Amino acid sequence: MSNETEPDATAVPQSAGTGEYNGAQALISTLVEAGVQVCFANPGTSEMHFVAALDSVPAMRGVLALFEGVVTGAADGYARMAGKPAATLLHLGPGLGNGLANLHNARRAHTPIVNIVGDHATYHKKYDAPLESDIDSLAGTVSGWVRRSGTVAEVATDAADAVAAASGPPGRIATLILPADASWSAGGTPAAPVAPKARQTVADTVCADVAKVLGSGEPTVLLIGGLATHEEGLRAASRIATATGAKVFAETFPARIRRGAGLPAVERLGYLAEQVGYQLTGVRHIILAGARSPVSFFAYPGKPSDLVPEGAQVHTLANDTTEDPTAALIALADLVAEQVEPVLAPASRPALPTGPLTARNWVDVVGALLPENAIIADEANTSGLLLPTATAGAPAHDVLTLTGGAIGYGLPVATGAAIACPDRPVLCLQADGSAMYTLSALWTHARENLNITTIILANAAYAILRMELQRVGASAGGPKAADLLDLSRPNLDFVSLANGMGVPGSRATTAEELATLLTTALAEPGPHLIEAVVPSLL
Amino acid sequence: MSNETEPDATAVPQSAGTGEYNGAQALISTLVEAGVQVCFANPGTSEMHFVAALDSVPAMRGVLALFEGVVTGAADGYARMAGKPAATLLHLGPGLGNGLANLHNARRAHTPIVNIVGDHATYHKKYDAPLESDIDSLAGTVSGWVRRSGTVAEVATDAADAVAAASGPPGRIATLILPADASWSAGGTPAAPVAPKARQTVADTVCADVAKVLGSGEPTVLLIGGLATHEEGLRAASRIATATGAKVFAETFPARIRRGAGLPAVERLGYLAEQVGYQLTGVRHIILAGARSPVSFFAYPGKPSDLVPEGAQVHTLANDTTEDPTAALIALADLVAEQVEPVLAPASRPALPTGPLTARNWVDVVGALLPENAIIADEANTSGLLLPTATAGAPAHDVLTLTGGAIGYGLPVATGAAIACPDRPVLCLQADGSAMYTLSALWTHARENLNITTIILANAAYAILRMELQRVGASAGGPKAADLLDLSRPNLDFVSLANGMGVPGSRATTAEELATLLTTALAEPGPHLIEAVVPSLL
Repeated sequence: MSNETEPDATAVPQSAGTGEYNGAQALISTLVEAGVQVCFANPGTSEMHFVAALDSVPAMRGVLALFEGVVTGAADGYARMAGKPAATLLHLGPGLGNGLANLHNARRAHTPIVNIVGDHATYHKKYDAPLESDIDSLAGTVSGWVRRSGTVAEVATDAADAVAAASGPPGRIATLILPADASWSAGGTPAAPVAPKARQTVADTVCADVAKVLGSGEPTVLLIGGLATHEEGLRAASRIATATGAKVFAETFPARIRRGAGLPAVERLGYLAEQVGYQLTGVRHIILAGARSPVSFFAYPGKPSDLVPEGAQVHTLANDTTEDPTAALIALADLVAEQVEPVLAPASRPALPTGPLTARNWVDVVGALLPENAIIADEANTSGLLLPTATAGAPAHDVLTLTGGAIGYGLPVATGAAIACPDRPVLCLQADGSAMYTLSALWTHARENLNITTIILANAAYAILRMELQRVGASAGGPKAADLLDLSRPNLDFVSLANGMGVPGSRATTAEELATLLTTALAEPGPHLIEAVVPSLL
Repeated sequence: MSNETEPDATAVPQSAGTGEYNGAQALISTLVEAGVQVCFANPGTSEMHFVAALDSVPAMRGVLALFEGVVTGAADGYARMAGKPAATLLHLGPGLGNGLANLHNARRAHTPIVNIVGDHATYHKKYDAPLESDIDSLAGTVSGWVRRSGTVAEVATDAADAVAAASGPPGRIATLILPADASWSAGGTPAAPVAPKARQTVADTVCADVAKVLGSGEPTVLLIGGLATHEEGLRAASRIATATGAKVFAETFPARIRRGAGLPAVERLGYLAEQVGYQLTGVRHIILAGARSPVSFFAYPGKPSDLVPEGAQVHTLANDTTEDPTAALIALADLVAEQVEPVLAPASRPALPTGPLTARNWVDVVGALLPENAIIADEANTSGLLLPTATAGAPAHDVLTLTGGAIGYGLPVATGAAIACPDRPVLCLQADGSAMYTLSALWTHARENLNITTIILANAAYAILRMELQRVGASAGGPKAADLLDLSRPNLDFVSLANGMGVPGSRATTAEELATLLTTALAEPGPHLIEAVVPSLL
């Protein structure tokens, strides 16, 4: 480069050792001190000082993704498993836009994320340069906290506040908009961590009131969600159910639920209103612990959106935002089930099936082979309807689900989970249509050599939409409609796609092949992809 | 499905022949009547009635894409070439979010798009179901017009207004938010087309004033943009330049520029401020015709953002929003260059080069082989710096460029251009890093059997960011920074990726191989992808 392109003196970041920091260095140092030590990044020009500053703060790990939806989904998966936020690094409004869908899922999961969005230098914005856009409005749609650093002096305190905002209950996306000049200017000072708010403890009177409901003898459901689907909450809920006869359900799409042998077996509320109607038949009381009152995922003509059965009462033991549902469940269990132990699922695996793969037998392969303490990132969608049964007695594992309905979450969330838990095997169960929104996550699986085995459930259709089109009224759909839900023309070859991104790919059409390939994939370190050709149930 | 899941009578769309329409049918019929006959779609449950209605309106073509960024980019490319809008069909806030980056580019290109975003049924929104989000705020960031249909009775008139709003000057994104119940309810009536506003003609006095500037003898630049980079505007600009000695430049990133043999050769303003500084050295007057006053793409420490040379005056012949720059240029040419003909580029092709591919020779292969009347979707980025020279005397062609800087535009825009112009060959020149944002466009290339030849310029790096990191100050970047700009660990294999989506892929490492593969690809119908391994210039 010619001398003409060299930045002026204020632009040259000082090394962290000199005692003088630019904004980016102060920011990253502050994040690290506050426990944020991974940054999923897809940077651009306005983020170059942040990128350059990574080398001066060794404790911050930068993980590159090739698309922002992978960045944000990985940050979601990381925090679900690590219990603390990662940072993102996104480039201006379009970068944030590309990351919004998985931020939407993270918002619904109450996932803490420190979402850093680079912006033009403050003085440059008035020129409305080509990449200028309304970042603040975009950020507001998914964030529980948004701040724009005005000057280098503010960056570090803003970062400390962002970590606290993200980490406080219920967990939220804290978006810090970082103008390039706040990042590149000298004069930054790392800030001390700020303690996040604590979760509120539920009052004894609330527990006592709920205990009375449980003592009524009327049919009662205990609906648990949020942190209550981790082991402690599940055990308390099981004690309550065992002692009182209440039935426990988990919310439809938990951010993270523990299950398998040695854990209480808790059924999730169904996705379809009809399923929920069946599950809640005759119920007079619904007690919420970290979950929200059940509503239909979508509206359907002539169907109710509110899924609380007529005449049933809803009682809140612990809300889903500010309160501690686990502590509340334990307190309630101590009240109504003092000497009662939880009922735990026995170890039990399905036999390895044989024959051509079907939506009924592939799950048995997973149930038969699931390794100890696995993490399942589940975006199998319609192909996975029978998964919970097949894995109910498998070794204890965590399941991450699609909390917000924005598809393309599985591969990215698996990425973040594997980085949070390098010693645990991650199984990504991924429908084919959804896989295509964020497929480049595979490249990050390869680059970081993550222990992720992806099974693509390839039915060559948007099968869930075929079902929905039928629900609309089958007469409505002709060949043009059918064509818009079909992925078989041409067929997607996920083995080639995986190989193209450095992940070893293979294909199974029989249960035996899937078992062999899965065994190998789980035994070898690093990522693998298996395309399982599983005809649609529908 | 059980009877329980059947929708009630109001949900069953009537066939268009019965004289009764549901909202979706009335909407699509209205679009078709207004000339919108292609809908790029990635639908979900809330859009199923729209999808079902496609079969009742034969004139509307539905084109499926596997990711919303492909949908919106294709709509951009379609309208740039067709001169009229396509419709999109997106699923709720996350679907719009995924489409925002290419809508950003379309906004900067002044591309007309009827952007249809499905939403939950009106009565369902209050339940804050998992996919609920603030669609209106998202839409506002990229749209020049946003409306939410309240009832089925409003849908068709809203659609007619949307087409008019999109089509009126300067061309804008008109977002119509379509609640599911407005779509599924009976009682729709197609609406007649609404005439868009016309472009304003520039006053004679403005032309006369600009003519005086041109007559001053002082160094003058004529900066053209928008529709003025089509053939008529270029010819008028060339006449003016020839007669007055003014120098013509096109805006840095034109939505569509005509060039090649038989066209005036017009240089574009550079991407880097330093280039523009060189191009505008000594200039005393800048006359704008459909372009905006030049500003730096990004801010850099110690560098100006406003690129108008000190002491130079800016004169607006025709603004970039409401006025007709082509008519203004013709009027001005008739005033100052009555008998003057434009200077046209002679036919001239580079010789076919030999040897290993480089950033210098691959463009000569394109220049030597570019077919008649091609459309180039150019996202070659740093690898394409020398393309304009190599193609200056090639057969006349149109070039589409990255107007808004949101990368991942090339493959989708090529998709839409090919659908708008099925008889013209489309050449997509696509950098490797940018390709990965919207790679699934290749699947739509295959499904629709589009005559698109994609050349991936594979340098295994975010090369432009390497340059930018150097501009930050080379001392700043260490191995962690370098790693975040590197795409070689693992290498992306675009041949496998293309094959995985049904597009025949091949790889060239020498100029001879590229020439052979390009010749074959251009001769065969349907899509092809060539990975050209071109080491970075930087």
